[in-house]
Amino acid sequence: MNFLEKIINAENKYNSLLCIGLDTDINKLPDSIKKAPNPILEFNSRIIEKTKDLVSAYKINIAFYESEGKNGWDTLEKTLDLIPKDILTIADAKRGDIGNTSELYAKAFFKNMSFDSITVNPYLGYDSVQPFLNYKDKGVFILALTSNKGSQDFQYLNIDGSPLYEKVVEKVNEWNKDSNCAIVVGATHPEELKKLREKAANLPFLIPGIGAQGGDIESTVKYGCNKDKKLALINVSRAIIYSSLGNDFDIKAREATIKYNEQINSFRK
Amino acid sequence: MNFLEKIINAENKYNSLLCIGLDTDINKLPDSIKKAPNPILEFNSRIIEKTKDLVSAYKINIAFYESEGKNGWDTLEKTLDLIPKDILTIADAKRGDIGNTSELYAKAFFKNMSFDSITVNPYLGYDSVQPFLNYKDKGVFILALTSNKGSQDFQYLNIDGSPLYEKVVEKVNEWNKDSNCAIVVGATHPEELKKLREKAANLPFLIPGIGAQGGDIESTVKYGCNKDKKLALINVSRAIIYSSLGNDFDIKAREATIKYNEQINSFRK
Repeated sequence: MNFLEKIINAENKYNSLLCIGLDTDINKLPDSIKKAPNPILEFNSRIIEKTKDLVSAYKINIAFYESEGKNGWDTLEKTLDLIPKDILTIADAKRGDIGNTSELYAKAFFKNMSFDSITVNPYLGYDSVQPFLNYKDKGVFILALTSNKGSQDFQYLNIDGSPLYEKVVEKVNEWNKDSNCAIVVGATHPEELKKLREKAANLPFLIPGIGAQGGDIESTVKYGCNKDKKLALINVSRAIIYSSLGNDFDIKAREATIKYNEQINSFRK
Repeated sequence: MNFLEKIINAENKYNSLLCIGLDTDINKLPDSIKKAPNPILEFNSRIIEKTKDLVSAYKINIAFYESEGKNGWDTLEKTLDLIPKDILTIADAKRGDIGNTSELYAKAFFKNMSFDSITVNPYLGYDSVQPFLNYKDKGVFILALTSNKGSQDFQYLNIDGSPLYEKVVEKVNEWNKDSNCAIVVGATHPEELKKLREKAANLPFLIPGIGAQGGDIESTVKYGCNKDKKLALINVSRAIIYSSLGNDFDIKAREATIKYNEQINSFRK
């Protein structure tokens, strides 16, 4: 199953556009979990167990594992193994380097580990993205317009009447020869999301920024989906996984996931 | 000793602007080394031992270690420990993410590991770079104009008469309140290097692209240095560390390093 098929299949099977971000921070875990031999893995395991029938994707934020050193890499690999094969896995790594180096990042995430997709920074241009695209069954989410305040610094710069992030999306459309490109657009920019969906009718969109970052769900669904109300992966991290600081965190995470799903799906009708 | 002092001190002490890139690829190692318990570490150890009196910096390309999984992270930490404390260490990681995530990347490279500096991608703007800059004694090399062909795709886009990479450098000048900013400019763009040195007279420049990528040494030194013929770190990776495929690789690497140093220094007079 290729990248696009996997997204469509998961969105249909679970009737969900939701992506849960496993930004698992050792400092935010319930005390009960901190005593486990590998607290982060135990936490992820219980979150996945209680939400895996409700989502179309899990996004693993690599920084949270890299900051734990070699044990973090072990936890990352083991977390990936816990995710059912019909749910899309996203390495939120924001990598990108000159060709021979990007090849190694692609190897790390697609070959050594079996992620279905990765987030990539476009600044270094095509030859920095191509090594990821060469894995034709894997997906590459290219940063277009990010959810943070700093997106103003460069992404909005005006180039012949269009902002830089639109130029990025135009290039992504060109690069999408094997239907394995996708883009990242923050939910914190609803008007821009609408324009980008017009420019890229059939690209998958990864949309972070609802939940802790405050993006609006209605406009995210309305503007972020394609005409079939699909191909949007709406990410929530902290607002789901840290729903409770007690030992009922997994049950509360499930309740939050159900609530987000209902809200999202109500705007798909 | 802060970031700037460390560069100036190393450039003076070793009379060298050279940075050796430890892009150590398991597939390119001499057969004699492949039998060692940790071939990459053994290779790095012998390269560092034979070149550490000739360089001002070592740049460790993180992809080469990340692609070896958790063992790679172990090798990375052990390699870092082998580098003398008066030589600048650069984590060539090209990271960058929203604030709470960049904080963790900064922790990974500056706190868990004791790198002196890191390369960072500017696309996500100030709040993605700030967590690195908050380590005031560490250095942050921000990608301005990269050495690869793909630099044409976005970095040259015209914004009110100036290319994007110049806008990046203008922002870096603003962000440099603690004198811990620096930029990356490829040696493959000599005219642009000259213009950027005029815009950023006192920023350290990391300049990859001579050696395997074919950048010209004379123009790199002439245009990349500040007025005192310093603050340029001229990186060579493959053309030094793979000077020989035999067991004399470390001796040949030393010879190549001496040759590059002589060439570089001849243009500093």
